[in-house]
Amino acid sequence: MKKIEILAVLCLAGYTTSYAQNAAVKGFTTEAATKQLQTEKEFDKHLSNVRVGQNIKELAARPHHLGSPGGKAVAQAVLQKFKEYGWDAKIETYQVLFPTPKARLLELIYPTRYVAKLKEPAFAEDATSGQDGQLPTYNAWGADGDVTGELVFVNYGLPDDYIQLEKLGIDVKGKIVIAKYGRSWRGIKPKVAYEHGAIGCIIYSDPKDDGFYQGEVYPKGPYKNDQTVQRGSVMDMVIYPGDPLTPDVGATAKAKRLERSEAQTILKIPVLPISYGDAQPLLAALGGPVAPAEWRGALPITYHVGPGKAKVHLKIEHNWDLVPAYNVIAKIKGSQYPNQWVVRGNHHDAWVNGADDPVSGLAAQLEEARAIGLLVKAGYKPKRTLVYAAWDGEEPSLLGSTEWVDDHADELKEKAVAYINSDGNSRGFLGAGGSHALEVFTSEIAKNVIDPLTGVSVFERKRANDAVKAASAKAQRAILKKDTLSLGALGTGSDYSAFLQHLGIPTLNLGYGGEDGGGDYHSIYDSYDDYVRFKDSSFVYGVALAQTAGRAVLRLANADVLPFDFASLGKVINQYETEVKQLADQLREKYNAENQLIKSNSYKLAADPKDKFIASAPKPDVPAFDFAFFDKTIQRLKLSASALNSISVKALTNPKLAAKFNNAVYQAEKSLLIAEGLPKRPWYRHSIYAPGFYTGYGVKTLPGIREAIEQNNWDEARQQITIATKAVDRLSTLLENITQGQ
Amino acid sequence: MKKIEILAVLCLAGYTTSYAQNAAVKGFTTEAATKQLQTEKEFDKHLSNVRVGQNIKELAARPHHLGSPGGKAVAQAVLQKFKEYGWDAKIETYQVLFPTPKARLLELIYPTRYVAKLKEPAFAEDATSGQDGQLPTYNAWGADGDVTGELVFVNYGLPDDYIQLEKLGIDVKGKIVIAKYGRSWRGIKPKVAYEHGAIGCIIYSDPKDDGFYQGEVYPKGPYKNDQTVQRGSVMDMVIYPGDPLTPDVGATAKAKRLERSEAQTILKIPVLPISYGDAQPLLAALGGPVAPAEWRGALPITYHVGPGKAKVHLKIEHNWDLVPAYNVIAKIKGSQYPNQWVVRGNHHDAWVNGADDPVSGLAAQLEEARAIGLLVKAGYKPKRTLVYAAWDGEEPSLLGSTEWVDDHADELKEKAVAYINSDGNSRGFLGAGGSHALEVFTSEIAKNVIDPLTGVSVFERKRANDAVKAASAKAQRAILKKDTLSLGALGTGSDYSAFLQHLGIPTLNLGYGGEDGGGDYHSIYDSYDDYVRFKDSSFVYGVALAQTAGRAVLRLANADVLPFDFASLGKVINQYETEVKQLADQLREKYNAENQLIKSNSYKLAADPKDKFIASAPKPDVPAFDFAFFDKTIQRLKLSASALNSISVKALTNPKLAAKFNNAVYQAEKSLLIAEGLPKRPWYRHSIYAPGFYTGYGVKTLPGIREAIEQNNWDEARQQITIATKAVDRLSTLLENITQGQ
Repeated sequence: MKKIEILAVLCLAGYTTSYAQNAAVKGFTTEAATKQLQTEKEFDKHLSNVRVGQNIKELAARPHHLGSPGGKAVAQAVLQKFKEYGWDAKIETYQVLFPTPKARLLELIYPTRYVAKLKEPAFAEDATSGQDGQLPTYNAWGADGDVTGELVFVNYGLPDDYIQLEKLGIDVKGKIVIAKYGRSWRGIKPKVAYEHGAIGCIIYSDPKDDGFYQGEVYPKGPYKNDQTVQRGSVMDMVIYPGDPLTPDVGATAKAKRLERSEAQTILKIPVLPISYGDAQPLLAALGGPVAPAEWRGALPITYHVGPGKAKVHLKIEHNWDLVPAYNVIAKIKGSQYPNQWVVRGNHHDAWVNGADDPVSGLAAQLEEARAIGLLVKAGYKPKRTLVYAAWDGEEPSLLGSTEWVDDHADELKEKAVAYINSDGNSRGFLGAGGSHALEVFTSEIAKNVIDPLTGVSVFERKRANDAVKAASAKAQRAILKKDTLSLGALGTGSDYSAFLQHLGIPTLNLGYGGEDGGGDYHSIYDSYDDYVRFKDSSFVYGVALAQTAGRAVLRLANADVLPFDFASLGKVINQYETEVKQLADQLREKYNAENQLIKSNSYKLAADPKDKFIASAPKPDVPAFDFAFFDKTIQRLKLSASALNSISVKALTNPKLAAKFNNAVYQAEKSLLIAEGLPKRPWYRHSIYAPGFYTGYGVKTLPGIREAIEQNNWDEARQQITIATKAVDRLSTLLENITQGQ
Repeated sequence: MKKIEILAVLCLAGYTTSYAQNAAVKGFTTEAATKQLQTEKEFDKHLSNVRVGQNIKELAARPHHLGSPGGKAVAQAVLQKFKEYGWDAKIETYQVLFPTPKARLLELIYPTRYVAKLKEPAFAEDATSGQDGQLPTYNAWGADGDVTGELVFVNYGLPDDYIQLEKLGIDVKGKIVIAKYGRSWRGIKPKVAYEHGAIGCIIYSDPKDDGFYQGEVYPKGPYKNDQTVQRGSVMDMVIYPGDPLTPDVGATAKAKRLERSEAQTILKIPVLPISYGDAQPLLAALGGPVAPAEWRGALPITYHVGPGKAKVHLKIEHNWDLVPAYNVIAKIKGSQYPNQWVVRGNHHDAWVNGADDPVSGLAAQLEEARAIGLLVKAGYKPKRTLVYAAWDGEEPSLLGSTEWVDDHADELKEKAVAYINSDGNSRGFLGAGGSHALEVFTSEIAKNVIDPLTGVSVFERKRANDAVKAASAKAQRAILKKDTLSLGALGTGSDYSAFLQHLGIPTLNLGYGGEDGGGDYHSIYDSYDDYVRFKDSSFVYGVALAQTAGRAVLRLANADVLPFDFASLGKVINQYETEVKQLADQLREKYNAENQLIKSNSYKLAADPKDKFIASAPKPDVPAFDFAFFDKTIQRLKLSASALNSISVKALTNPKLAAKFNNAVYQAEKSLLIAEGLPKRPWYRHSIYAPGFYTGYGVKTLPGIREAIEQNNWDEARQQITIATKAVDRLSTLLENITQGQ
């Protein structure tokens, strides 16, 4: 550990020299930038990888899920730390619904009997793996139920898989499906199964995706052993996240609640996650056709689809309790603009011990808070108010953060300049996603943070990795030439959703990773021992995250002119528009070809005459969509954004202009919100970013247009083009209003 | 079986009606075409799927490899049949070298001990699987040897795999490699291993490629069980096929022979094929890095590359005997052009029983011969001489056919109009490859043969399948629009090599398949029982092959004007030229990008700092190649071919012109031969088609140019462009000479 600590210091030294040559910081006058960089240098000095490790060890010492004694203890420990660090901290408590398992039974009852173990064993190599108080393996928000039926293997359980099943003549109505984890957020699988008439859903981790196929299994290596299970929420979070009983309002003790039966986001069928050890006897018993090649995993069996032979019995009961969610909220008041808030958050609840998820991110955030506290003690005064949050109940679908945002919505709409999120963190490359108006800002930070193990900036290291991994020589050269980082677009899966997608608050999500196998995810093996052996062993990427998110917070807090750049956003919207146009064109070409294949009888002639032939239904014609106004509007946004960028430079030396600029720009993203929300899910209001209705975590950009096309709803696509055009128009108008008269 | 026989007849009835509307047959006057179609109708009537099945059962009743008593018996049975059918038949015998195993030992000696079984078990479901006289599992033409060394897993054992190994810092020098079957001809694997310094090579069938991953295993299903082994030759056949001791001359008893040590095509290291049951303990014992994702198979282990831990001992000894190869040669003398030969062949030797490979093709060929015999008895007189051959020793690398071609080279150069080959045959789609001057001819036949199970022409069924399987909607539409079949280009792997690639005789290779799993290939389970259960159960595709190859023979034999069309060849050469240009362009782009990644230190920055970094060597600059003359020459060929096509129509009514045309066109392909042969392998002389130096069976078109570019030999690429240009030029001159003065 020592050796790496020295290396980190050496790198920082090199880095100091290099950025001293370039004192420009976006949004700061030259003088202020010099001071800011000095502050950041002080900030870095206060960060210690050793302390990050100690915090991980301490906070992951016991199971600490939402509603558990361990969870409450962690919230109090975090509160205590913020207070020690000099912050004005308190716990804000909400009463949220949280199902925990009362009964879980899965058995193969025909043609042979096998009772699933549903239990992860403890290992001597993992000190916390045998502790009491662990949540059993389960998926929160599945229904209670006692069902028996034939089993059908549905690959990853996504809509395309059911199209394949239809081609094979297989219907899951009245059956229990078994799906592999992966390729979508897990909650999509039982939702789609239910849409197709299934009465139960089993989800397992195939060793091909996470198990011996990937590498050595736990405890020898990091990958899932044959009994490891991924817990997790299956709430229909793409409708809305947070407490199912209190959509749109904070789940305070006296909040008006829906009946459980009215809550749209609770599933209608029982769901159970299992290990590949438990899945193998079930899958091996299946008859029916051999699974398509892309469906097969790494178990030593011939994968069949079923139905036939295998019959299973699944019984699930939950305790449907209201439990307290403890959000720790810590503040340092802004010296000049106390009503402009820079909000920073990471959750503290885990499925079990959660050393990686979420404690590795939380420990970095605490290290930031500590360093900022020391800066303040030494006289540093952030101009804007800092709000640091440690959220509870993220795992069961963003309960703590969503309820807090609902509860404080009016204040946040007025005051929140940006929200900066993190979650589990590990070794590797910077991952950065969020509002594209912050892309230039984030790039600048990435060039100022040094990768602890290679000594180059995290920007440079990420670019190198992106270039090496790129699919074509052309893409490789393009990436090497690029001097800015590309922010990813955000879907969901961590606490930023309510901020970005419900309220339109500019958001960043930051973390390091990409070099570690992840078999511990949501299992009892997400422990300190696992983290030290297989992840950020010396915690130096914890420091890197603190440096990255810390800079984001400190620069937003102290900028003379807020560092938004809407030209990047304009470019990105243009790119998304090109994508949805191509999507329609490709769908048109694909459907045309498919219809020709149907008409020419080709599918039938290509099929094996031994098999029963299932005719495909003809595909609809894909109309031409009129993107002309949207094109124009995006061009207008680019021009407005470019004009505004000139103003932002002027504002550096014109405090009145700066005030006008600042007050307006952090509100600008809200003009992209759609008042009525997205089709079928009004809670999601951002016209540019949303989690996919059938992907979950995976983002859909221009979601209204894109999903309407994907779902062959041409009228809705036309409406959504108009809606997105108006949203971009509103943003342009807002930006032009700032520029006007300057 | 009966039901299908009726169906076949119904189909034929429909087909008779449909082709009666279109009496045009390429190369025939209208009158002659009507007669020809009548002849073909009679021919079809003589074909019986039941008899095809009986022949398969009879000829696959015992093991009958080259040099075995069973092999001699099959040759004599085939001779007898030809004689019965009224052909002038004899056996031509050659004395060829053929190694058979004397000792085979493979054992894991560290860290645990495991002795490989090397034995396929007999099953009650397979009547011939327990017979005496089976060749043990082995690879012919590996060296004798007794080696002990560390094991390294090399994926499929191809050059790119060794590039990956180099990136991992792994050297196979002095080690024993284990490679998966597949992705190349098997002989490439030990050859490349030897080039990299390995001292032994083990080849196994991974269950992902052929085993439980694909479907049920034998005897429950057709795929390889855990003890099934693929035998096969590993001769360095891409240098030259046939008897290693007699390159370029027939291996008659008194032929001058090389010493065994002088024979370039015998390998220098011992090689052994094994089952996945025997491979698993070896692979499971390997240490070293986890294998790259694309390398991993379906065994329930973490695939490692090694070296480390696993040490193996491999001992192989052979009997290096000269054995007699019995080619059965049957003739019917041409009535008008006895010195123009239509040659047709299929081998008769098998690795063991060989019901599929080769007997299913041989049985169809015998059925053709029988039907032609009956036509002749009824008064039919082929204008040209028919030569039907049943080759011996194909399995150990085309021994029988190559020696016969060497022995009769002068006569064949003068007389052979075309060679039509077949081999194992099964259910499914027409596969047709060969000389592109015969593409239009083959298309016409494919439209005249009815698929026995669907009732449409085999052309239509193949097009439907090609369209459905095509990668893009654009490709699908293009295929549906196409009214001609695309002939594949031929590499090697069956008896056509000496005809096409050594002598430049126009060649077709025909067969049906694509609907059956092939785990029996080169194992003791390639039996009648397996064939009936899992392949062409009712033998109707045997009849389809007889109809297809039979039409090719009868039309070539009786055409007024030989049905060559060099316009198709011109188009195809143009397409190959485009491909090699693109290959150079893509390589240039790829190497440029790689060099930029190296220069920018990206590989190092993207690598995991925990691992030892192996720097890549910079790639050479890819120069621009001058294709201008080649372009012009190909355009000239297209013009000459088009002019010649007009002449071929004129010739139908002008016997003198027809004679001039016919005598010249079947010789035309020889102008594409390169006198000095291809670089490093002068035996292969065709400038357009050759087996790949590092793919084996897989063809390389424009092989001289393509392989020089692939191997980064820029000077050779330039020379080969000139050489190919001259070859195409010669062909154009020849075609223009026919046209001149008409």
